[in-house]
Amino acid sequence: MASPSLLASVEVPSSSANLGSGFDCLAAALSLKLRGELHRGDEAGILLTSHGEGAPRDDADPERNLVIRAFRTGLRAAGGAPGGSGAWRIEVSSMIPSARGLGSSAAAIVAGLLLGATVGRRRPDPDELVALATDLEGHPDNVSAAIFGGITLSVTSRHQPAVIRRFRPPDRWIPVLFIPLAESLTHEMRDLLPLTVSHADAAAQAGRAALLATAIVTGDASLLRVAMDDRLHQPYRLQQLVESARLIDIAYEHGAAGACLSGAGPSVLAICDSAPVAHGVEKAFNAAGIRGMATRLRFDEVGARITAGPSASEP
Amino acid sequence: MASPSLLASVEVPSSSANLGSGFDCLAAALSLKLRGELHRGDEAGILLTSHGEGAPRDDADPERNLVIRAFRTGLRAAGGAPGGSGAWRIEVSSMIPSARGLGSSAAAIVAGLLLGATVGRRRPDPDELVALATDLEGHPDNVSAAIFGGITLSVTSRHQPAVIRRFRPPDRWIPVLFIPLAESLTHEMRDLLPLTVSHADAAAQAGRAALLATAIVTGDASLLRVAMDDRLHQPYRLQQLVESARLIDIAYEHGAAGACLSGAGPSVLAICDSAPVAHGVEKAFNAAGIRGMATRLRFDEVGARITAGPSASEP
Repeated sequence: MASPSLLASVEVPSSSANLGSGFDCLAAALSLKLRGELHRGDEAGILLTSHGEGAPRDDADPERNLVIRAFRTGLRAAGGAPGGSGAWRIEVSSMIPSARGLGSSAAAIVAGLLLGATVGRRRPDPDELVALATDLEGHPDNVSAAIFGGITLSVTSRHQPAVIRRFRPPDRWIPVLFIPLAESLTHEMRDLLPLTVSHADAAAQAGRAALLATAIVTGDASLLRVAMDDRLHQPYRLQQLVESARLIDIAYEHGAAGACLSGAGPSVLAICDSAPVAHGVEKAFNAAGIRGMATRLRFDEVGARITAGPSASEP
Repeated sequence: MASPSLLASVEVPSSSANLGSGFDCLAAALSLKLRGELHRGDEAGILLTSHGEGAPRDDADPERNLVIRAFRTGLRAAGGAPGGSGAWRIEVSSMIPSARGLGSSAAAIVAGLLLGATVGRRRPDPDELVALATDLEGHPDNVSAAIFGGITLSVTSRHQPAVIRRFRPPDRWIPVLFIPLAESLTHEMRDLLPLTVSHADAAAQAGRAALLATAIVTGDASLLRVAMDDRLHQPYRLQQLVESARLIDIAYEHGAAGACLSGAGPSVLAICDSAPVAHGVEKAFNAAGIRGMATRLRFDEVGARITAGPSASEP
């Protein structure tokens, strides 16, 4: 069934960064995916075609360029193509809506990198991929989750490359997502953040982040409400994203263990610790009269993987 | 051997709060202890005698008053003494030097509370003890470690009483402490902290605190160096505590997995993941030419306990 021109294909999960108090460090991979295929092209250069929910729409779309830039970067990191520069066609199909805080650009970058790496002379290791993807994305949180799957903690440091730890998502935790129709842009959302915060808020955030890591490692969902009560970004962003703020309240009213902005928003992620609660939160989200869609997902446990090509497997 | 006047005795561990990036929330109980005995007194009222390393020295000593205040509070919380107000003598002997960042006041408070509670009509539960001790101490970190032992994470929140989680200290981790002769006072050390910090430092701290909790829960000492790299208190306090700053450097030079100020200092805690490294760090501390003493300890896993009295056991 695979087209004879197919060289490689990859699947990359969406991701929800921050998880409340895990601002800029924690992220969860989610089961909405982006798929990329690399085909032999008809003429020298890279042709990109894309379709689907969050597909790059035209040449002016920054994600379109990201896929191609990431492909070139991945190819270079893998020692270049054995036959020199070639003729390629990349097909991207995506279920990840863009500009909703779901890591669509991280997924596009990781897909491009992996496709580039598959046709190169040598195979970059996952840590190398994270470093390359972080360079392209600007921060490691979403790309770590997209590459490793699960829930990732990425901490940058003066002393060394980012320290990344991957956690297995607790079995009982069910992510319920509300994806508003309205888009937002991470860089605009970032402009809402203050340059300084009170020492008390900084200290409170650190305690909550430690509690959030504890909840994730031990699977104790009862800690999430306090642990996810962020002080560094949600108070500022939710002033603009009033519908997202309402959705977070609705999630808690219907029994969610935790709820937060997904990335910089506007999507809202609720974590529920039973199927009936997840069902109730999904229904309540859909009944809230906010344009968009609620959906129960799974955490992605696999991360980016090569589904066809020279060495089909995880990265 | 127990004196016929003995009503109850308690043992309470010292504690090292903050652990670097766990500012105001994480604390480890250490094997240096304070012991308290409650005896029937000769006349109405409370007589306090104390001796040992960190013993309250005279009536002007705030810790002296703390023991008595905590005793009264514990007695009140336990429903008062069956026979109305009585005649008591409290004897405190302590191995915990005061004003060194080792939780001597938390230990004094917990000892007083427990002794008061042992002679009351009913037994306050541990959560009640934590709340009472937090009221007296002003913050829950040291008192949680003193009561529960192990390593504790205490997070205060608008929504509810402090959330406290206790972790078993990883088996291979060995705490090595340097206790300088010079004292410092927490409230003076607190005055060194700024009212605001950069958003970037606050975000970095939260990531490190999440990593520190991960290191503790999983026992992965290799995470400690980045995880303990605090941004909220050490950079400010270590400007004054130059000898403590040197000791932290020395600990890392000799292979410690992590090193930090103990509480607000000036003591320094190094965490080592093997006996030879712990031995080397202890030797290097003692060779540094700083007035004080290095000592290899154990983490205390038991917490405060009643060693004699109406119901000798853990609180």
